[in-house]
Amino acid sequence: MSYPRECWYVAATIDEVGDDFLARRILGTPVVLYRLADGSIAALEDRCAHRPYPLSAGSRDGDCIICGYHGCTYDPDGTCVRVPSQDKPPLGARVRAFPVHVSGPFVWLWMGTPGSARLRPPAATPELASEGDWSSTGERRRVGAGFLLLHEHYLDLTNVFEMHAEMVPPGIEALPPPEEVEISEVSVSYARELPQAPLAPWESAVSGLDSAETFSRRETGTFVTPGLHRQTYTIGGADGPLLELVRLHGFTPETERTTHVFLQLAWRGTAVAADAGPRLAEVFHLMADRDSAVLETVQRCLDEDEAPRRYVNVKADRAAIRARRIVQSMIREEQGL
Amino acid sequence: MSYPRECWYVAATIDEVGDDFLARRILGTPVVLYRLADGSIAALEDRCAHRPYPLSAGSRDGDCIICGYHGCTYDPDGTCVRVPSQDKPPLGARVRAFPVHVSGPFVWLWMGTPGSARLRPPAATPELASEGDWSSTGERRRVGAGFLLLHEHYLDLTNVFEMHAEMVPPGIEALPPPEEVEISEVSVSYARELPQAPLAPWESAVSGLDSAETFSRRETGTFVTPGLHRQTYTIGGADGPLLELVRLHGFTPETERTTHVFLQLAWRGTAVAADAGPRLAEVFHLMADRDSAVLETVQRCLDEDEAPRRYVNVKADRAAIRARRIVQSMIREEQGL
Amino acid sequence: MSYPRECWYVAATIDEVGDDFLARRILGTPVVLYRLADGSIAALEDRCAHRPYPLSAGSRDGDCIICGYHGCTYDPDGTCVRVPSQDKPPLGARVRAFPVHVSGPFVWLWMGTPGSARLRPPAATPELASEGDWSSTGERRRVGAGFLLLHEHYLDLTNVFEMHAEMVPPGIEALPPPEEVEISEVSVSYARELPQAPLAPWESAVSGLDSAETFSRRETGTFVTPGLHRQTYTIGGADGPLLELVRLHGFTPETERTTHVFLQLAWRGTAVAADAGPRLAEVFHLMADRDSAVLETVQRCLDEDEAPRRYVNVKADRAAIRARRIVQSMIREEQGL
Repeated sequence: MSYPRECWYVAATIDEVGDDFLARRILGTPVVLYRLADGSIAALEDRCAHRPYPLSAGSRDGDCIICGYHGCTYDPDGTCVRVPSQDKPPLGARVRAFPVHVSGPFVWLWMGTPGSARLRPPAATPELASEGDWSSTGERRRVGAGFLLLHEHYLDLTNVFEMHAEMVPPGIEALPPPEEVEISEVSVSYARELPQAPLAPWESAVSGLDSAETFSRRETGTFVTPGLHRQTYTIGGADGPLLELVRLHGFTPETERTTHVFLQLAWRGTAVAADAGPRLAEVFHLMADRDSAVLETVQRCLDEDEAPRRYVNVKADRAAIRARRIVQSMIREEQGL
Repeated sequence: MSYPRECWYVAATIDEVGDDFLARRILGTPVVLYRLADGSIAALEDRCAHRPYPLSAGSRDGDCIICGYHGCTYDPDGTCVRVPSQDKPPLGARVRAFPVHVSGPFVWLWMGTPGSARLRPPAATPELASEGDWSSTGERRRVGAGFLLLHEHYLDLTNVFEMHAEMVPPGIEALPPPEEVEISEVSVSYARELPQAPLAPWESAVSGLDSAETFSRRETGTFVTPGLHRQTYTIGGADGPLLELVRLHGFTPETERTTHVFLQLAWRGTAVAADAGPRLAEVFHLMADRDSAVLETVQRCLDEDEAPRRYVNVKADRAAIRARRIVQSMIREEQGL
Repeated sequence: MSYPRECWYVAATIDEVGDDFLARRILGTPVVLYRLADGSIAALEDRCAHRPYPLSAGSRDGDCIICGYHGCTYDPDGTCVRVPSQDKPPLGARVRAFPVHVSGPFVWLWMGTPGSARLRPPAATPELASEGDWSSTGERRRVGAGFLLLHEHYLDLTNVFEMHAEMVPPGIEALPPPEEVEISEVSVSYARELPQAPLAPWESAVSGLDSAETFSRRETGTFVTPGLHRQTYTIGGADGPLLELVRLHGFTPETERTTHVFLQLAWRGTAVAADAGPRLAEVFHLMADRDSAVLETVQRCLDEDEAPRRYVNVKADRAAIRARRIVQSMIREEQGL
């Protein structure tokens, strides 16, 4: 196993879940999600308890789900309430139901030990709340790379010069290693200040600021939990922040080698262009396309390596290495090692 | 291994085997079938004894088969009779030849221990004999599911309400569990009587009977051998059977996860419409399409299950469970366990 | 491992390697080849030392190669000379560089123990030298079969009657087993004389000789090294050789089941038609197409065999069997067995 299970992960965005079944493999397990009459969301293991068949291939009877093979029927708690060919369903026939927590656009799922979901709430994402002064937009994709590769990728932004050179403010030639790396038992953060520089084209487009002036930027990245990565990027003026930008990534292992990526961008400030939303969506969609291609290549290289080989670390890898250790330690702890 | 080898299996239908080679993987082994000058059928392992190359990619020399790689030539008994680059073939050079038994449209093959084929003749299929009062029609397909899943599927017809609702006589809401289940060491049968009911559209179409009247039906299913499944469906009137319908399935493992399915329908009676043949072929072809899709989904679910998991049985599974035990016991016995 | 590593293998033809990166998997290892400013050729392991990413997806900085992920830069010896996010690269950061030897059209690569390349030069191919009286032409292809299957195939030409009947001089009904087989510890040769016979159409086309006359032929085949196979075919007249034809095959394992094949034809003599080059290229291209198809079928048969099975050898296999033993013994020796 190459990912922790005792975590909340984003299973879907709220607009993906409706009356129709949404079938998705999460942590290697098939899950079916659907919306109940009271507006809440049910998440069941997507397998009939009777024979190996996906419940999502069946139909609904109110809040219940009817298997399309022999008609076994389950309520949203996973209890089998009807087997058509006999009077009562067998004792104890049920499928697993997973706790769901909705927060902003994210539908979080708990697939760890039943009952322990309550002990740890999902990570907070105040920038995505519908009230407040933040605006946000998002997208979802599936990337053919293990979820830890994605965390490591976004914890070391020194790749921007090779991969996303047009994103870098003019005149900045190199990102220094982060000035601060904060490490707890379960999370890792870094922060760095960029020297004063004029605006890159995307910055002036989304902020409406004068591209001839120079500005400071502060950049942070946080491995919040295995399921959530938060990055901030703040353009500052003489009197404080002009534009705050937050990039949130929900990383959800589909399998050991594939990941569902839920990207949300949030922004606020005094310098926000009227069309900042679609422009940010476009810029970061393009970045995500390139990031995905590179990460899938990295995964392919790992798969092709005939024996596991040792790669060399550099200073800029410091945060990524700590995140990897945290994940490995969580996995070992879950395995009781 | 997930299927018994000491059995007769249907390798082909008679019309498939002619002067050209028919290459087919059966029980995991490549086999080539072709018709000899005297009209009988030869079945050889489809591999040259000299180098790994399919004999079916070669050519014929009368009743002999010439390998297309170096010209090694085999008679229909599998003996190598010529190696072009030397005077005599090496002593003992041969490929395996399999006993063949033709019965009605079925070409049966014995791939078990050589010599023991004679001890157990293939199962009888009197309904498919060219003489007699039965008519018949058939089709062949390859299904991406293990052969035992097919037996189990057809031993529990309670899926018709979900899968083939239009086949059920009007007013019948549920199939009771079978009234009789007969079990021997090597076979399983069940039978059930349906309550009086009017005709489903397909029943009136193939019988020509008045769809407003009510009729009785008797339905049976038999796991005859691992290679043959027989089902009967009889529409009865006041004075006895009006239409007898037999559905025979030859189930032949191609690999552990794929099966050649040879479907034959036979019918007779006083109530048989003029176009009963094509109508039955069409109705049961459509059913087979749906059955295949569901069974391939079941196989895919089994393949995706990360660990073998336990599914719950219901009362309607009684015959299927017995068939599974018989097959497992045959396999264990063959392995000397 | 199913191939020796302590050998020179052809990695490319000289015209394939230019300023752009040529990425190719050789002996299971990704390799990038490119031409340096001084005209020589660099060959590096195609993986950044820092993170699993192909250097061939990056860019050039003079003779150096810059990784497209984080910008790590390597000189043609494989030393990491720059990591953009820090002052100096980590001590000892490097990728493996492979010795290259160019000879005629062949770019030979040494992937065995570093340093021992010098002990054994690549096999000589005087027929391919640009000076001298030989002319030559060639092609490259990738065949889905293990490299040893290719050697064995070309060491037993008795398949020509089944596979390439139009190549055989009229009236010759069978190739006798080779008259001479010479075996050393590391190579195998055979030779045979064909009886006097008229010309096959391809022979008269490339030689311009009178197809009604009869001629002798001498044919030899040599497993020179695991990476090189040499065959000769000489059409002789009353006063000696009229046309000498050499077919050289560079066989380079890509993986255990796939092989890069570098075919070169060379010819000289008093009987050479003006358009001999394109005609020979066409005739031997067609043969290679058929050989590839058969060898890929053989590999597929081997892969499908449920258990390794024993195939029967015939007299014509004598040279092939010796070549197989040499290869197996080289592999065992490399493994220290």
